[in-house]
Amino acid sequence: MSHTDRNAPVGVFDSGVGGLTVAREIMRQIPEERIVYFGDTARLPYGSKSKDTVLRYSRQIVRFLRTQEVKAIVIACNTASAYALETVASESDIPVIGVINAGARAAVHATKNGRIGVIGTVATISTGIYTEVIRTMRPGIEVFGKACPLFVPLVEEGLFHDSVTDEVASRYLSVLKEKYIDTLVLGCTHYPLLRSTMRRLMGENVTLVNPAYETALELKDLLKEKEMNRDPAAEMQGEQYQFFVSDLADQFTNFATAILPKEVKETRKINIEEY
Amino acid sequence: MSHTDRNAPVGVFDSGVGGLTVAREIMRQIPEERIVYFGDTARLPYGSKSKDTVLRYSRQIVRFLRTQEVKAIVIACNTASAYALETVASESDIPVIGVINAGARAAVHATKNGRIGVIGTVATISTGIYTEVIRTMRPGIEVFGKACPLFVPLVEEGLFHDSVTDEVASRYLSVLKEKYIDTLVLGCTHYPLLRSTMRRLMGENVTLVNPAYETALELKDLLKEKEMNRDPAAEMQGEQYQFFVSDLADQFTNFATAILPKEVKETRKINIEEY
Repeated sequence: MSHTDRNAPVGVFDSGVGGLTVAREIMRQIPEERIVYFGDTARLPYGSKSKDTVLRYSRQIVRFLRTQEVKAIVIACNTASAYALETVASESDIPVIGVINAGARAAVHATKNGRIGVIGTVATISTGIYTEVIRTMRPGIEVFGKACPLFVPLVEEGLFHDSVTDEVASRYLSVLKEKYIDTLVLGCTHYPLLRSTMRRLMGENVTLVNPAYETALELKDLLKEKEMNRDPAAEMQGEQYQFFVSDLADQFTNFATAILPKEVKETRKINIEEY
Repeated sequence: MSHTDRNAPVGVFDSGVGGLTVAREIMRQIPEERIVYFGDTARLPYGSKSKDTVLRYSRQIVRFLRTQEVKAIVIACNTASAYALETVASESDIPVIGVINAGARAAVHATKNGRIGVIGTVATISTGIYTEVIRTMRPGIEVFGKACPLFVPLVEEGLFHDSVTDEVASRYLSVLKEKYIDTLVLGCTHYPLLRSTMRRLMGENVTLVNPAYETALELKDLLKEKEMNRDPAAEMQGEQYQFFVSDLADQFTNFATAILPKEVKETRKINIEEY
């Protein structure tokens, strides 16, 4: 690690815009850090694809981020974290973290009755990875997973407060309500945008866990522990936050500007298949 | 064209399973032809992506299909037909046809009041290509386009007959009903699977046009005209119908077996990015 520049940026990637919720938390919690964000908008969504494919895509993105000389990588996508984190981290000489450990840890801290629900894509839920990680942290906890494949398209249509979204959410969540969970992990980066619907359907007594917040905290601790945190006094070379996508750069810029604390001036489109 | 083997297969491609509705019509109407089908399941959907990206993907697929020595290519996807047909056809020394011309022609034949509705993906509708093609065929016809981005995810969830689908369809189609259309083009290969919902919402007096049927007819005429139709007496080398995808081969096999007249024994997965 000695050759790594502690003032280098952190790489953050997702299948599209969802990971911006993680980037936003990093901006809030470690405002001195630089970020290079990549959204794979040409190949999204990941949640309905196979492990092989998501792993191949993740490796290409890691190779791209390395060309940007990042000092650490955050996989800001639950599906890619579920399918690719272990392999990608083992192949890398810089730290790579995902969103699942952080989300699981927050859920374990939050639950009182030991009954946790997890919602996510078909891919994330089918791996059972949240159950595995949560039970490693605290054996005996009951974990109930539920795939919610229509949530991402509904969010992308902007139907945050809508009778169709209510009906779909009510169907998905009813099976978790029946299990008397007291904690619900929003295991897909799009889902926090439906938080108010879920809050209403689940009631005030269920804690909603957003892994983005915990992931930024984990990154902060990791950088500090490895003495890789950026020196706030160091000169900022170029833009602090840089954005790359594989398609539809302007659309991404608009979305990012809407949800991030600072205006996004430019998003660059690259051909990720070349990496 | 003299070097082309008239007994070679026809290449058919789509972003996923939707194009199987076109393959099915070819099987029915020209049962002597061989088919090599490719579904780009690793990168679907196409309907929310840019022209550049869909064109690059289409070119890769054409290069793959050429390795299978196809004699003609059918772009069995409205989005790829809208974005890539013209370019891909101009670059190719074998015939390439799409689904839009056939769908437009059928709609022009069907309409009595000269008011046609077209539903499709955001990409297909944003190009205005159906309007352009229909008006070239018969100037003065009024064409009303409506993007229906939630239909594909609803179909992929199997919600063919469901109150959520009814509500979503009712919103999308109400703007077309207000235009007093008498013909509706199902401008996405997934949409025929929602035909009964649309029939109910639009009423008996609106003709629903499925471009798949007309496309198979156009292929049949084209092959005959160019004397490239397969000799039914020629020896069948290997399987008559071959299927390739970029991801999730088993899932594809199950879906294809459910909707095609013959059982699909095998689907082969390839890395389309290498082409």
